[in-house]
Amino acid sequence: MDDTQRLNIRQGQFTFAPQKDFKLESGRKFGPLTLVYETYGHLNAAQDNAILICHALTGNAHVAGRLPGEKKSTGWWDRVVGPGKPFDTSKYFIICSNILGGCSGSTGPSSLNPRTNKPYGLDFPIITVRDMVNAQHRLITKHFRLQKLKAIAGGSIGGMQTLEWGVMYPRLTDHLIVLSTTHKLSSQAIAFNKIGRHAIMIDPSWKNGRYYGTSGQIKGLGLARMVAHITYLSEEGMQNKFGRERTGQKNLFSFDEKFQVENYLDHQGEKFMQRFDANSYIYLSKAMDLFDLTRGFRSLDAAVKRIQAKTLFVYFSSDWLFPEYQSAELIESFQKNKKYILSYKIESNSGHDAFLLEYDKLNPIMQSFLDV
Amino acid sequence: MDDTQRLNIRQGQFTFAPQKDFKLESGRKFGPLTLVYETYGHLNAAQDNAILICHALTGNAHVAGRLPGEKKSTGWWDRVVGPGKPFDTSKYFIICSNILGGCSGSTGPSSLNPRTNKPYGLDFPIITVRDMVNAQHRLITKHFRLQKLKAIAGGSIGGMQTLEWGVMYPRLTDHLIVLSTTHKLSSQAIAFNKIGRHAIMIDPSWKNGRYYGTSGQIKGLGLARMVAHITYLSEEGMQNKFGRERTGQKNLFSFDEKFQVENYLDHQGEKFMQRFDANSYIYLSKAMDLFDLTRGFRSLDAAVKRIQAKTLFVYFSSDWLFPEYQSAELIESFQKNKKYILSYKIESNSGHDAFLLEYDKLNPIMQSFLDV
Repeated sequence: MDDTQRLNIRQGQFTFAPQKDFKLESGRKFGPLTLVYETYGHLNAAQDNAILICHALTGNAHVAGRLPGEKKSTGWWDRVVGPGKPFDTSKYFIICSNILGGCSGSTGPSSLNPRTNKPYGLDFPIITVRDMVNAQHRLITKHFRLQKLKAIAGGSIGGMQTLEWGVMYPRLTDHLIVLSTTHKLSSQAIAFNKIGRHAIMIDPSWKNGRYYGTSGQIKGLGLARMVAHITYLSEEGMQNKFGRERTGQKNLFSFDEKFQVENYLDHQGEKFMQRFDANSYIYLSKAMDLFDLTRGFRSLDAAVKRIQAKTLFVYFSSDWLFPEYQSAELIESFQKNKKYILSYKIESNSGHDAFLLEYDKLNPIMQSFLDV
Repeated sequence: MDDTQRLNIRQGQFTFAPQKDFKLESGRKFGPLTLVYETYGHLNAAQDNAILICHALTGNAHVAGRLPGEKKSTGWWDRVVGPGKPFDTSKYFIICSNILGGCSGSTGPSSLNPRTNKPYGLDFPIITVRDMVNAQHRLITKHFRLQKLKAIAGGSIGGMQTLEWGVMYPRLTDHLIVLSTTHKLSSQAIAFNKIGRHAIMIDPSWKNGRYYGTSGQIKGLGLARMVAHITYLSEEGMQNKFGRERTGQKNLFSFDEKFQVENYLDHQGEKFMQRFDANSYIYLSKAMDLFDLTRGFRSLDAAVKRIQAKTLFVYFSSDWLFPEYQSAELIESFQKNKKYILSYKIESNSGHDAFLLEYDKLNPIMQSFLDV
C-alpha cells in the first residue's frame, strides 16, 4: 500500500474572489485567489475531526508521506502526521494549504496576473499573515464547508497564522498548537529578513522582480537562505555539528579550502535557488516583519482576550531568532486574560528549527494536548 | 592648538622586504610590504613608553584627534587616546599601523603589484593574523628600533593580533590589553564572515576581484557590512534602539516603507561602500576565520604558556559573536598556566562593539592596568 492510500492523501485547489472581491489588510481588493492544498485521513460524519496545519515560510502543503513518483523525501512533518502519530490520520482529517504569496501553487507573485497574462512580480500586493488566514478561512468555510476545527497548528510563521486564527476567528477551533513563534518580530529578526530581501533586490538577475522567463540565476536568493539558516540554527548546535572542521586536506591558505560550515551554507543556498521563487521570498519575509498580533487592538492583552480555543504554546531554549522574553510576554498575556494555555519550554540546541527536529520531546506533548 | 600639535600626531610609512623576502605563514614569500602608521605623543629617552594599538577589521591607523582638513570625525579610539586618557599622550608614545591586507595605505589587495603594475586583486596572497603581527614586528624593531613596548592593545581582530604578539614575541611587551576577542572563531562567526565574502563574490561588479578602475558599485560589500553590523550589536541593544519603529508615516503595506532598523542597515551599507575595498574585506575576514592562536602548538595551553606579559582580558556580556564560553576557555588556560591575567566581564548591551562604546567602564580598567 503506498502512502497515498495509507494516509489517504488528496490534492486539490480552491479558487475564489473572481471579482477581485477579497479585501486585504492593506485595504486593497484582490482576486481571483487560488489555494492549493493537501488532505490526509478522512473527515468523520460529525465533521468535527479536521485539523488545519499552517506551514512555515518556505514549506508547502505536502506535510506527510511520499507522493507517487516522489522518491527521496517525505512530507516536511512526516514525523507528526500519520497513523499512530500525534496528528493521527486514522482519527483526524488533516488539511494543509500552500500559503498565499508562496510559490507552490497558491496565488503568489509568480502566478499569472489575469489582467496582463504575465506573472505579477512586484505588482502583487503586499500581503500579511492576517490575509493568509483570511484566505484559509474561505478555504475552510466555503470549500470544505466546515464550521468547526478540532485544531489549528503551526510553527514559526505557521505559528503566527495559528495565533491570528485564534484572535480573528475565536470560535472556529477547539485547539491552537503554537510552536516556535512570537506575536511580533524583534528588531534583530526584522534586520535578518531585511538582509535577505536586500540580497535579492541588489542582484541584477532579479530585474526588479521581472525575471520570469529569463535564464539568470538569482544568487541573492541563495544568499538570503544562507543567512536565514544561521538564524534557524543555534550557536551551540552549529559548533557541535561543524566546529572548525574543514572540507578537505587542501592548502589551508586558499579561498578554495572551506570550513564545513561554509560548505553547508553553500549547499543550502544552492538547493533553495532550485526550489523557491525570489519574489515569494520577498513578500513572505515582509509579511513576517509586518506581523503584529496586536494590530487593530489596543494592546496585546486586548488581542489575546478574544482567543477562545485551548492553546498549547511550545518554545525552545536555543531559539534566538524568536527569543524567550517574547514567549514569556505572550504567555503572560494569556495568563492575565485567564485563557487556557499550556506552555512548554523544551531544552534543545536545535535553535528556531527545533519544531522540525525535536519530535521525541514535542510529539507526546502535542498528542496529549489534542485529548484535553 | 590643533590636534596635530596637541597630540603630536605624526604620519609615516615603512617599506621592507624589497626582495620578496617576507615569509608568510602559508610558506609563500612576499614583498615589498609597506605599513602606513600614525604616532601620538613622544618617545621618551629610555625608549620604554611605547604602546602599540592594533585596530579592528575595518579600522585604520588614525586613532585619535582630528587631522588637518578633517572636519567631522575624530580618530576611532579618541576616547581612549589623548592627554589624561588611559593611553595618555603626555606619558606614552602611541603607535598604530594600518593592517596588512587593508585598504588605508598599507599593502593590501588594492595595492599595485610591482611585477604587473596593476592592483593585486586575488593575486594577493592569503594572509593571517600572524602575518599581520610579523609585519608589525618589523615596523617596531626595524623602523622604530624598539626592543621593548610598554603595552600592546586591541579589540576584536585587534585583540587577536594582541594575543598573537604575546605568544610569538613574548618578551617584547610588558602588557597585553586584549578586548572583545577569542583565540579562534566559532562555527557561527565563520558562517557570518562567509556570508559577507559570498555577498561580494556573487556580485557581478566584483569581477572576480578585478574591479579596480571600473565604475560599478559593489553592493555586495554593503550587504556584507549590513550583516556584520547585526553581529556587532546585541539583540537587546537593537530592540532598545530601533524596536519596531518605522521611518515614516507612509503606507505600512509597501516596500518603500521601512522599519528604522532597515534604514540603519541601509545607511551602514552605503557608508561602507564609499570607504572600504571589497577585496580587503574578503582577505581580512578570511584572516579572522583562519586565526587560531594554537596553530603550530600542541594545545591552547601550550600556546598560552609562552606568554610573558601581564594580560588584561575584557569581554562584554552581550557579545554573542565572540561568546562568553570562549572567553572562559581562554581565561582558564591563562590561570592553568599560572600567567598574570586580570579578566573583567563588563555588563553591557552594546554587543561585540562594546570596546568602542563602553568607555566609562573600560577606561578606568585600562588606565589602572597600565600602572601594574
